[in-house]
Amino acid sequence: MNKSEQKAAVVLLSGGLDSATVLAMATNQGFHCHALSVNYGQRHRSELIAAENVAKSQSAALKTIDLDLRTFGGSALTDDIDVPEEEGEGIPVTYVPARNTIMLSLALAWAEVLGANDIFIGVNAVDYSGYPDCRPEFIDAYEEMANLATKAGVVGNRLAIHTPLIDLTKAEIIQEGTVLGVDYSMTVSCYQADEAGRACGVCDSCRIRAAGFESAGLEDPTRYKSA
Amino acid sequence: MNKSEQKAAVVLLSGGLDSATVLAMATNQGFHCHALSVNYGQRHRSELIAAENVAKSQSAALKTIDLDLRTFGGSALTDDIDVPEEEGEGIPVTYVPARNTIMLSLALAWAEVLGANDIFIGVNAVDYSGYPDCRPEFIDAYEEMANLATKAGVVGNRLAIHTPLIDLTKAEIIQEGTVLGVDYSMTVSCYQADEAGRACGVCDSCRIRAAGFESAGLEDPTRYKSA
Repeated sequence: MNKSEQKAAVVLLSGGLDSATVLAMATNQGFHCHALSVNYGQRHRSELIAAENVAKSQSAALKTIDLDLRTFGGSALTDDIDVPEEEGEGIPVTYVPARNTIMLSLALAWAEVLGANDIFIGVNAVDYSGYPDCRPEFIDAYEEMANLATKAGVVGNRLAIHTPLIDLTKAEIIQEGTVLGVDYSMTVSCYQADEAGRACGVCDSCRIRAAGFESAGLEDPTRYKSA
Repeated sequence: MNKSEQKAAVVLLSGGLDSATVLAMATNQGFHCHALSVNYGQRHRSELIAAENVAKSQSAALKTIDLDLRTFGGSALTDDIDVPEEEGEGIPVTYVPARNTIMLSLALAWAEVLGANDIFIGVNAVDYSGYPDCRPEFIDAYEEMANLATKAGVVGNRLAIHTPLIDLTKAEIIQEGTVLGVDYSMTVSCYQADEAGRACGVCDSCRIRAAGFESAGLEDPTRYKSA
C-alpha cells in the first residue's frame, strides 16, 4: 500500500524500548507513522539520539520539539535530585510531573494539523513503576477529553489514543518487538545513560529492562557502561 | 493574610484582556497566584510583554516557558496563513490546534510541582469564536483527566480547573475587571499587534474587544496602530 493511501498516526517516540516497539506495532497495523520526540531537558539525552536511530531504522519521519520541563523542576529526571538505585514506596522521584499529559497534548496538536485520528503511546500498566499517568483510567479520560478539545470532536471523527503495551509484561513487549524486527540495541532505557547511550545497569529502568530480556529468554543487547 | 498562608494557584496569563481579569479574580479570591505564560511562537509577541506588565502590576510571579508550536503549524497565529478581517463559518483559522489542552497541561505540571490544586484559565463560552477547546464540556473533561494524571488524584486531593469567565460576556468581563482595578491599557488582544502592542482594530479579536468596551459603557484604553 502506498503511504499516501494509509491512515496517518502520530507515535510518541522516546528512544526507549517500549516506544520503539509501539512504532513497529503501529506500522504493522498499517498506519503511516509520524514519530514525535520531545526534548524536555531529560538527563538522558542519548534517548533523543536513540529516537532518531529507531525512527530511521523503521522508515518513520521524526519531529523533535523542544520543551524544557526543567522550568518547573520536581523530578530526578529533570532536576537536581539523585536517581535512586532501589525501588521505594509510592510515586518514584523519577516521575516527571504531568509528562504523559504534556506529551499526549503535543501529539494531539500534531495529529490535528495532519488530520490524523490516531495517537500511539507506549504506556504500560504492568511495569508502570507507580506513575499515575500510566494507568488505563488516565488514558480513557485523556481520550474523552481529546475528543472534546479538537476539531475531530466537532466534525464527528473519533480520535483514539492507542496503548498497545498497556497490558503486556516487559518480556511480552520484547518478544512482540523481536518478531516485528525491532533492533533493541538502538534503544536506551537507562535513566542515567552516558552520551554514547550506555546504561548504568542499576536504576529502576535498567533492572526492569534486564529482567524483561531474561524472562523473555532473549539475549539482552543493552550496552552497559562497565561492560 | 501572609502569602505563605494562602493557597497557591497557577493562572494562565496571555497578556490579553481575559487572562488579566482572571488573574485579578483569582487574587481577589485569596489565592497566591503563580502566573504562567507560554511563548508558543505567536505572531503577536507583544502579548508576552503585556503579560509581564500585567503580572508585575498585580504583584504576581510570572514564569514564561518556550514551546514553539510553529513546529506543527496549522494556524494563522503560528503559521503563514493570513489573519482574516471578517468572521467566517465554523472553526476560524486563528484557532491553534490543541492550544488550551497544551497550556493546561503545562499549568498542571507546574501546579503539581508547587503542590497547588487550583488552575485558572480565561476561556469563555460566550465569545468563544468557535474554538472547540473553549467549551465547558471540554473543561469538565480536562479536570476529570487531570485528577487521574497526577499525584493529586493518587493522594486524594481534588484538582480544580477554574474558568471564572466562562459564562460572562466581554462587557461583563471588562466591568468585573474594572472593579478589581485591572489596567486594560496594558493588555493586548489583537491577533496582529505591532511590537509596541498597538492593535489593528480590524481582526476578530479587536472587534470583539471594542464592542465589549462599548457595551460595558466604559472608555476603551486600547492603543491602535492608526491612532
